[in-house]
Amino acid sequence: MRVNRSILPSGRIGLAVSGGADSVALAFLLTKGGKKKNAAQRFVVLHVDHGLREESKEEYRFVRNLAKRLGIPFKGIHAHVCRNRGESLEMAARRVRLDFFSDCVRKLGLEAIATGHHMDDVAETFLMRIRRASGPEGLAGIKETSSVGPVRFVRPLLGCRDRELKDYLRKYGEEWREDASNGDISIERNKVRHKVVPYLEKVLDPKLVEHIFKISVLLNAASKS
Amino acid sequence: MRVNRSILPSGRIGLAVSGGADSVALAFLLTKGGKKKNAAQRFVVLHVDHGLREESKEEYRFVRNLAKRLGIPFKGIHAHVCRNRGESLEMAARRVRLDFFSDCVRKLGLEAIATGHHMDDVAETFLMRIRRASGPEGLAGIKETSSVGPVRFVRPLLGCRDRELKDYLRKYGEEWREDASNGDISIERNKVRHKVVPYLEKVLDPKLVEHIFKISVLLNAASKS
Repeated sequence: MRVNRSILPSGRIGLAVSGGADSVALAFLLTKGGKKKNAAQRFVVLHVDHGLREESKEEYRFVRNLAKRLGIPFKGIHAHVCRNRGESLEMAARRVRLDFFSDCVRKLGLEAIATGHHMDDVAETFLMRIRRASGPEGLAGIKETSSVGPVRFVRPLLGCRDRELKDYLRKYGEEWREDASNGDISIERNKVRHKVVPYLEKVLDPKLVEHIFKISVLLNAASKS
Repeated sequence: MRVNRSILPSGRIGLAVSGGADSVALAFLLTKGGKKKNAAQRFVVLHVDHGLREESKEEYRFVRNLAKRLGIPFKGIHAHVCRNRGESLEMAARRVRLDFFSDCVRKLGLEAIATGHHMDDVAETFLMRIRRASGPEGLAGIKETSSVGPVRFVRPLLGCRDRELKDYLRKYGEEWREDASNGDISIERNKVRHKVVPYLEKVLDPKLVEHIFKISVLLNAASKS
């Protein structure tokens, strides 16, 4: 499994952990299951309870407990998401999350926030952006590093398949929380994940996700130069 | 229908006509169904009988007759395709065709050779190149202009859908020849055309082909700069 530690800054890093398999794997991999020396100084788990689903309070406790077991600090909020004029609920939740991350960067002196985005996310984003006829940069989609205002994001798991991360967690007997909406194919990303990608893997290219990831790396390199 | 005449050089142009709908439409559109002034000075129909299918002799006569009806010169060959070491039959046929085009450019003083490639070809090529994890230039695929050795190719129909070209020919009561192998989905392009594109148009994006074409234009612009 290709975890790219070279993009992690040397200072303090927030780990954005929702409780899903990808972000739980992120916390496990970076702290070596709690065995990494000085992990408590280097990392802090960040979690937002958006209060939009019944299970969200339990997920909050699950992530807080995970941080405790890994021996690293936990910083979470129970947010109250209110839509501004013209915002979708998803956009509002994203704004609340970004505000919280911004706060954490400032108050905790974080150099970056790491997220659990993986190779399947890259491929799904690529396929969804065809709809918007994005140019090279839009198609490349998810980058290993990016900034939103004062928040620097790093994504060390882009070289890993979703499946690999879950296998890794199972191997160590670790649990995660499944977002119930993941199965709802009226949501575009879920349709791409559960229908389009499996179809294309069967009919067009068994290594579709790996190939789109490689294209994404090439597109990112080209748009930089 | 967006025919891009701006890429046509002012001198003499060869029209690569196989007898399929796209190249027959090319000859019709550029000669205005034979009504264009000085078409006989400006254009010459080029055709290669590769001698690989039973119908190829009849197709040769069909294309020669088409040129006659359009009032423009015809230059064709009955080729004998022999594979060189390591060549597939398709590669050998392509080499023979390119040699013929090269000859025509030199002997007939052609400034360019126009082909009937259209928007569906661009989208199919894009999807097939995902398999090869092509970078920006490879993904963009078919360009409006390109050169192979001394032969300059121009592709004025990239802005047209396959369907539009066929509708245009039907409207004027014009025929074309259907390559029997077009239905063979063991050939990758045919699988992409008959299975992958219709599936993605249904599930992912009804305007898939137009969107991939737009992406291709953006990728080409980016790889130029």
